[in-house]
Amino acid sequence: MTSPQELSKQIQLGNRRALAKAITLIESNRESDEQLAQELLSQLPENNQSIRIGISGVPGVGKSTFIEALGNHIIAQGKKVSVLAVDPSSPTTGGSILGDKTRMETLASREEAFIRPSPTSGTLGGVAKRTRETISLCEAAGYDVILVETVGVGQSEYEVASMVDCFMVLMLPGAGDSLQGIKRGILEITDMLVINKADGDQKKLAERAKNEYENAFHLIHPKYSGIQVQILACSAIEKNGIDEVWKASLHFMDLLKKSGVFSKNRIQQKLSWFKRLAEDEIIHLLWNQKDNKSFISSLENEVKNQSITPVQAANELVIQFKKQLRSQV
Amino acid sequence: MTSPQELSKQIQLGNRRALAKAITLIESNRESDEQLAQELLSQLPENNQSIRIGISGVPGVGKSTFIEALGNHIIAQGKKVSVLAVDPSSPTTGGSILGDKTRMETLASREEAFIRPSPTSGTLGGVAKRTRETISLCEAAGYDVILVETVGVGQSEYEVASMVDCFMVLMLPGAGDSLQGIKRGILEITDMLVINKADGDQKKLAERAKNEYENAFHLIHPKYSGIQVQILACSAIEKNGIDEVWKASLHFMDLLKKSGVFSKNRIQQKLSWFKRLAEDEIIHLLWNQKDNKSFISSLENEVKNQSITPVQAANELVIQFKKQLRSQV
Repeated sequence: MTSPQELSKQIQLGNRRALAKAITLIESNRESDEQLAQELLSQLPENNQSIRIGISGVPGVGKSTFIEALGNHIIAQGKKVSVLAVDPSSPTTGGSILGDKTRMETLASREEAFIRPSPTSGTLGGVAKRTRETISLCEAAGYDVILVETVGVGQSEYEVASMVDCFMVLMLPGAGDSLQGIKRGILEITDMLVINKADGDQKKLAERAKNEYENAFHLIHPKYSGIQVQILACSAIEKNGIDEVWKASLHFMDLLKKSGVFSKNRIQQKLSWFKRLAEDEIIHLLWNQKDNKSFISSLENEVKNQSITPVQAANELVIQFKKQLRSQV
Repeated sequence: MTSPQELSKQIQLGNRRALAKAITLIESNRESDEQLAQELLSQLPENNQSIRIGISGVPGVGKSTFIEALGNHIIAQGKKVSVLAVDPSSPTTGGSILGDKTRMETLASREEAFIRPSPTSGTLGGVAKRTRETISLCEAAGYDVILVETVGVGQSEYEVASMVDCFMVLMLPGAGDSLQGIKRGILEITDMLVINKADGDQKKLAERAKNEYENAFHLIHPKYSGIQVQILACSAIEKNGIDEVWKASLHFMDLLKKSGVFSKNRIQQKLSWFKRLAEDEIIHLLWNQKDNKSFISSLENEVKNQSITPVQAANELVIQFKKQLRSQV
């Protein structure tokens, strides 16, 4: 087993296998791995030079093709790119709804690209649980641009938007229909809107959609005062407009940095991360205290046979938990 | 201030003001209220005679009109009905996206109906945080049918589906388009699908949609083996098909009860509730320990000026938390 120290060193040297290994460690639910993951994370240097872009859009909008085109374009500018896919698996089937690297073959084959799907179990609130940590790992490994892909489902958009610098939403041409399908609130967290599949017959539709979205955004309170949401059209499959998207992203980052919002956002994101990590750890302690387990199952049994209510059971568990922590410290 | 004992008694006597007061108490974030809310919840009798129906659908599908029509129909059968609206407010605006009782005027005026919107702040995971508790209160107050309305946004569908007996999804006629807009996973948690606005010109479209959905459901692994998802069409505005929807719900409950799934689900729901309550309480303790507050702000400052990482801050807070609990017990 590689030590966290060694792993951290290897990651910073750009060792891809070490990076992959570290991510697996961080995603693991095994008690011993969690300890190691903690140590590893504490050792990572911070990298504030990277940029983080969230990419969202409903299935069928062409996210994979778009990310592949954008990723290759970024590499052509001499940069290293990391693609993380946040995948809130279906709560009932538990299955991953994203494919794997075969979705982005040409990008996956590049030395300058690192692609990693993050299937998360469908527990509420568990979406993208380890994505924030994985971003840090990729940044420590020297990736300049982190693309975080999210499927257009559930809370994941909000979570991803809260950990990136620029939240990009992909849309299909044909705004009338699309506008209906947009979830309320998504436009409010959007920094850039990209209409994909603007090719062939759909070019005209895309132009019209662009106008409609521009009108729609006029009705929305801007996310950052003085910074307008940019709306672009592209064809990922024909690689048209990809450079414009990339330049618009850089321009957006520039505006953010000049206005001071960039670093303010990053600090806010760190504070939320701190909060989430502390809560995760406490909840983990609650359910995994060694001496707690039999007490928890007896409480569960009492709830099952209705001898106590869930509220009473929770109260008892919390009291017991306090006692246990006491005996440990 | 009414005592929790008195409040519980009044609720069980059917005092509507006491019920409203109790819900406000439960939704309150004030420390003193939380203590009282806990006591109140511990005192409530369990009521396993009620039925709980979740109702979901995108904005524009006619949920209010449908719920009003269904609610009035249920009352006409001699039953009392409670309507709870789960409203995951937009994280950025913080505003409630649901209207109030004026949405369901005729239902709101009925003595046998109790309508309560539950605006929740847009914190991740905070959706419908108190809805489960409110269901219990309404059941203790003798409401036979609890309708839990959710807007078609975010995780709220999954949360609501996990606290009701039957999860109903409203759709618009015009299945081709609608099918596209359906979020993956929603069909998997659907127990009944109701195509609303099947009136006038749209009747034919609704019939076609019904067929298309029937085909779609054939492709999905059934939620309960031996129980088919029922697909109905209705016009809430013309009050056509509402009785069929109600009868289908009762039939569904019957099948659930006969197969033993009903009580199994209820037990599972109680166990999840127990879990969530215990976690909430622990997290509440973490952030609200009196002596913790200044320590937390100093950690936050260190994160802000980058003298420690979020991971380190979280570790320190958890260690401090353990120590504090020790000194208290």
